[in-house]
Amino acid sequence: MDCCPYWSVLRSPRPERWFASDNAAGAAPEVIATLVEANTGHALAYGSDPWTARAEECFRALFDRDVATSFAYGGTGANVFALGCLLRPAEAVVCSRVAHVTYDETGAAERIIGTKLLEVDTLDGKVTPQGLSSVAHLLGSEHHVQPAVLTITQATEMGTLYSINEIRTLCEIAHEMGLLVHMDGARIANAVAALGGSPATLRAMTFESGVDVLTFGGTKCGGVFGEAVVFARPDLASRAKYIRKQTTQLHSKMRFIAAQYVALLENNLFIDLGRRANDAARQLHEAVCDIPSLGLGAPPQVNSIFPRLVDPAKSVLQEWSFFWDWDVSASQVRWMTAWDTSPADVARFAAGVHEATSN
Amino acid sequence: MDCCPYWSVLRSPRPERWFASDNAAGAAPEVIATLVEANTGHALAYGSDPWTARAEECFRALFDRDVATSFAYGGTGANVFALGCLLRPAEAVVCSRVAHVTYDETGAAERIIGTKLLEVDTLDGKVTPQGLSSVAHLLGSEHHVQPAVLTITQATEMGTLYSINEIRTLCEIAHEMGLLVHMDGARIANAVAALGGSPATLRAMTFESGVDVLTFGGTKCGGVFGEAVVFARPDLASRAKYIRKQTTQLHSKMRFIAAQYVALLENNLFIDLGRRANDAARQLHEAVCDIPSLGLGAPPQVNSIFPRLVDPAKSVLQEWSFFWDWDVSASQVRWMTAWDTSPADVARFAAGVHEATSN
Amino acid sequence: MDCCPYWSVLRSPRPERWFASDNAAGAAPEVIATLVEANTGHALAYGSDPWTARAEECFRALFDRDVATSFAYGGTGANVFALGCLLRPAEAVVCSRVAHVTYDETGAAERIIGTKLLEVDTLDGKVTPQGLSSVAHLLGSEHHVQPAVLTITQATEMGTLYSINEIRTLCEIAHEMGLLVHMDGARIANAVAALGGSPATLRAMTFESGVDVLTFGGTKCGGVFGEAVVFARPDLASRAKYIRKQTTQLHSKMRFIAAQYVALLENNLFIDLGRRANDAARQLHEAVCDIPSLGLGAPPQVNSIFPRLVDPAKSVLQEWSFFWDWDVSASQVRWMTAWDTSPADVARFAAGVHEATSN
Amino acid sequence: MDCCPYWSVLRSPRPERWFASDNAAGAAPEVIATLVEANTGHALAYGSDPWTARAEECFRALFDRDVATSFAYGGTGANVFALGCLLRPAEAVVCSRVAHVTYDETGAAERIIGTKLLEVDTLDGKVTPQGLSSVAHLLGSEHHVQPAVLTITQATEMGTLYSINEIRTLCEIAHEMGLLVHMDGARIANAVAALGGSPATLRAMTFESGVDVLTFGGTKCGGVFGEAVVFARPDLASRAKYIRKQTTQLHSKMRFIAAQYVALLENNLFIDLGRRANDAARQLHEAVCDIPSLGLGAPPQVNSIFPRLVDPAKSVLQEWSFFWDWDVSASQVRWMTAWDTSPADVARFAAGVHEATSN
Repeated sequence: MDCCPYWSVLRSPRPERWFASDNAAGAAPEVIATLVEANTGHALAYGSDPWTARAEECFRALFDRDVATSFAYGGTGANVFALGCLLRPAEAVVCSRVAHVTYDETGAAERIIGTKLLEVDTLDGKVTPQGLSSVAHLLGSEHHVQPAVLTITQATEMGTLYSINEIRTLCEIAHEMGLLVHMDGARIANAVAALGGSPATLRAMTFESGVDVLTFGGTKCGGVFGEAVVFARPDLASRAKYIRKQTTQLHSKMRFIAAQYVALLENNLFIDLGRRANDAARQLHEAVCDIPSLGLGAPPQVNSIFPRLVDPAKSVLQEWSFFWDWDVSASQVRWMTAWDTSPADVARFAAGVHEATSN
Repeated sequence: MDCCPYWSVLRSPRPERWFASDNAAGAAPEVIATLVEANTGHALAYGSDPWTARAEECFRALFDRDVATSFAYGGTGANVFALGCLLRPAEAVVCSRVAHVTYDETGAAERIIGTKLLEVDTLDGKVTPQGLSSVAHLLGSEHHVQPAVLTITQATEMGTLYSINEIRTLCEIAHEMGLLVHMDGARIANAVAALGGSPATLRAMTFESGVDVLTFGGTKCGGVFGEAVVFARPDLASRAKYIRKQTTQLHSKMRFIAAQYVALLENNLFIDLGRRANDAARQLHEAVCDIPSLGLGAPPQVNSIFPRLVDPAKSVLQEWSFFWDWDVSASQVRWMTAWDTSPADVARFAAGVHEATSN
Repeated sequence: MDCCPYWSVLRSPRPERWFASDNAAGAAPEVIATLVEANTGHALAYGSDPWTARAEECFRALFDRDVATSFAYGGTGANVFALGCLLRPAEAVVCSRVAHVTYDETGAAERIIGTKLLEVDTLDGKVTPQGLSSVAHLLGSEHHVQPAVLTITQATEMGTLYSINEIRTLCEIAHEMGLLVHMDGARIANAVAALGGSPATLRAMTFESGVDVLTFGGTKCGGVFGEAVVFARPDLASRAKYIRKQTTQLHSKMRFIAAQYVALLENNLFIDLGRRANDAARQLHEAVCDIPSLGLGAPPQVNSIFPRLVDPAKSVLQEWSFFWDWDVSASQVRWMTAWDTSPADVARFAAGVHEATSN
Repeated sequence: MDCCPYWSVLRSPRPERWFASDNAAGAAPEVIATLVEANTGHALAYGSDPWTARAEECFRALFDRDVATSFAYGGTGANVFALGCLLRPAEAVVCSRVAHVTYDETGAAERIIGTKLLEVDTLDGKVTPQGLSSVAHLLGSEHHVQPAVLTITQATEMGTLYSINEIRTLCEIAHEMGLLVHMDGARIANAVAALGGSPATLRAMTFESGVDVLTFGGTKCGGVFGEAVVFARPDLASRAKYIRKQTTQLHSKMRFIAAQYVALLENNLFIDLGRRANDAARQLHEAVCDIPSLGLGAPPQVNSIFPRLVDPAKSVLQEWSFFWDWDVSASQVRWMTAWDTSPADVARFAAGVHEATSN
């Protein structure tokens, strides 16, 4: 019928959940339940409460070492806070050209901590040893900002993963150059699930490989809000409490962040949630990789797929079940799964994709 | 008995809730319920969700004007973000010497938005017209940072209130000098409850008196996290979305802040919550104002009392039911009530105070 | 003889002046003379003196329009000050990857004015229209810093020149995108000399082509210290006086900068000085372009040559008459002439190069 | 005659030099001569030249210790650079309310190094031990910016002097609190001349008393431009070269600053110049202290007098020989002498003052 609204052009039933982003998902039931449980009586603010102590203990147990953990509000703030703990004046951060901290954070690092981000050559979103080494000639010259921290994102903004060996190699080069290493783990749950699925995997890909500070993402893996910044050693956090407050990341009612992390870390729930998202993405890939025009390659390493899609199919699909453009110049879009993406969601979405691309 | 732990020196039963701070309280049940309700299905991130639209509409209705509302994570961040929208390079913020933004935010404004805070003479925590006028001679001289924004806190950090007339006068002077006016309303709920208790009170003490931007506190009046920055006119917010992200205050799963504000604004719940805290403080004042050594004056205007207290009574009481020192040099402590402080809490706490100060 | 010191390995007599940099040269005699002349009696500080008024008038005459001129101490400071006048929070500067402001200023712009520098694709040190356009997709998205200023260097850090047409095209694209245009003219004198050699050339390559703000370099073309920031229109400088002081560029005894510019602008001395340096570089190129190993291409556009040179010839020459490495990975060095490089200097240096590369 | 211009209302002949400021004076002949002498041939930029080495050696000899000296462009820049070397994130500078760094530098420190300036109680422009101690309670609390540096100005902005004992006491308190001490010596020459007049005086009032870093002013005592930042120990300057460049204080043709300091330090010329200014101020005080309406107290300690003066006398005098208002609300003006103020200048100015105030 020509009276049909545009969004009903497809006959396939729309999936209940979008493939727009893992931050379009809500919070996991266990997380919400613990948050509600924490809402009992009074608790001293700013982290002097039992939930924060318990969550900090969870992190020490998870990493099996004396890490220092500071909770923050959000991802941009956590990155700025973490890097701010590591940098002195006239020092810079080395990162990939697509790193969230340089591309998607509206210049927060430059503005707030006054640093420069040195974008180096990358492959599939990953900093390469060559890229890292390319800034070595800046060291020692007063005319150049001094590289002091390498930040890598695991899983990357392009849905790829550093292998544990790659991380170890980068950390070794960085440390030899005198740099510290920060890992932006906004999607650390997906990475852990993909690379082994156990706390041992997490340890191996972070502090055991030489990472100095980790932003351990909570929001994207089933949280309401809140991120954790985990320092490999307490001395790295010696001024963290001041810098957290100054970078606006100190939550007064901190128990509400801590409780979420208690839920996420107990029984390694975060790994389960990451695995669910990864599985859904792989299933989606399987369900549509027979469509040549999408130009899909290997199965996704974590929870995102970057198909080629042109109008009208693209617009029809976006109206039907929203997702984001990725690289307009390359006609690339992004489909992203979340901890709550169900097999039915995948099946329905795949059917819609087939329908939209079939003519 | 000498086996008694120190904290049980007092025989009075301890109150269930502390008088430490309104941010030691949890979230109001209505707020938690709405937050849980918002955790349904997928919603686009960064404010493109129905809850955010609904909360923005609630603010327009509450103020009965076309305000622009931006949600932020926390109080320090909201202040930095709000002021950052109003300031140009080489401009400064005029404030009281005890303003949270200058005294309790670890230099966030200086660091993040590069501004100077010009502390002026104050009376009971309130900027005076004379204090404000005292910076006028800086205007136009290249050697001095240029005053551009006045920020006032309502209710103040010292538990006092600006009358509506006082606000109007300050706004007039500020505007004549070419300054904009920001109100830090971390405890706006208590202020509204104290000065009239209706939306009309709120309007009169803010935009109708000339306030340009308001930080409308949510956390201290029963929220889990989240603050709202409300601009009197949309043009003041023309670059707010960029500055919010840059100052790390953009929550991805914004529905979870918005939903809390929907709960707080529906049926003016925030005013009820503010009133409960105020009432409890007044009751506590009544119950202990017969103890001369406390040096209490007039009943509290909002939800805090600043008694004089010395050891051993002070330490005994703090061990028994914790509260904060305020001004050590003046032997002053702070007792603060919250939205959930009950009459029983007040009665028990007052009994303990009497016991501790009786010998 | 083996007792010879290393630096005397070459038999050619060393040139009196190095080919290290135009800032290794001293000040032109006319500049020094006028500076000494300005040292008479008292003059009000901070620019309220007759020399400053006279220099400002010289700039208005030179550009034949109502420009606003602010003197600054040095090149990095002038750039930071100029860009700081054009930028709002969350805004960024588009530049070439080799721009002095991003590569050679130790992160000053990021630290002082909190901006991000968006490095785009360049050709021979010049921003291309494609490079500039590549940031257009950032505009309007709150997740990305907002491009607001394009800065181009004339002559570039690689010794190349934008043609007047190229400048006009870039300004048109920038203005269509909503960006202002800043020109870093640390070597504007060399550029003017090369592209026509008259004030009309200068006007055509700057404000008549759409440049909004120009850093007009004085130090490299025969000054002692001091740079001029010239705004195409007074309204662009409406807050310049405050921002100059805040960025530490306000000289108290300003007559001493102003007097140098009076000397440089009278009779277009700066163009003569630029021409001398350019001529010397071209003569050097002619004198050594017959040495194939140097890999020299076309004659230099301004005052620098970038030959290929490997050890031992490189080290021998550097010991004999110092010059800087340029791109070690490409075995490239830089030979740069100055306003005072003489034909005899060129002849001697060329002889040394021939000797060092002859075996 | 009624055709007389306003400025000739006074019959006294005008002095050749003003009493407006020591930065209205030009450069001392020895300074100019050495600057001209330095303009010979080529010299490597950025301090790798013989003049800089010689000036650094002069400072080591003057202080008789292994100081590290960095030259900077101007006073505001030198302060920002020096403090920037001492501060970490979330740290603050303690200063007097009238300190140049907080009152007269347009917020440069806040903007550039992101610090907060904690203004404490002062007496006659001097930080008191009580004032310094009043910030101790901030230490260790994450809600407050952390005091890390005390800056004192010698001579102060109000023309007063710290005694050597006062400096020692403040340094001891500061160091006990964990703070470093910076001295803003924009007028160090006047202070040394007043307190003893020998290098031993200088040493006693600076590093021997515990000062960690000194801004050693050159411009006000007969320089053209340029200030020196002198670190008591090389380790305090370990990152100075990067921070100097980042704060825009690295002069390329540094020999021209260094040569001025060679002139100022040879034969302790700076002390002579300071003494001349001090003497002139004392002579002026003697010549006008018999005018009761000026409200002059004790003779000036250095080179400024702050008389009370009202219209019409004030305006008549200012038109006749310009000087600045100081505190308009107190009808206070400032008369300041310079290194070149002559006895004839003093005599003429005093005569004018007598004439203007005589009716």
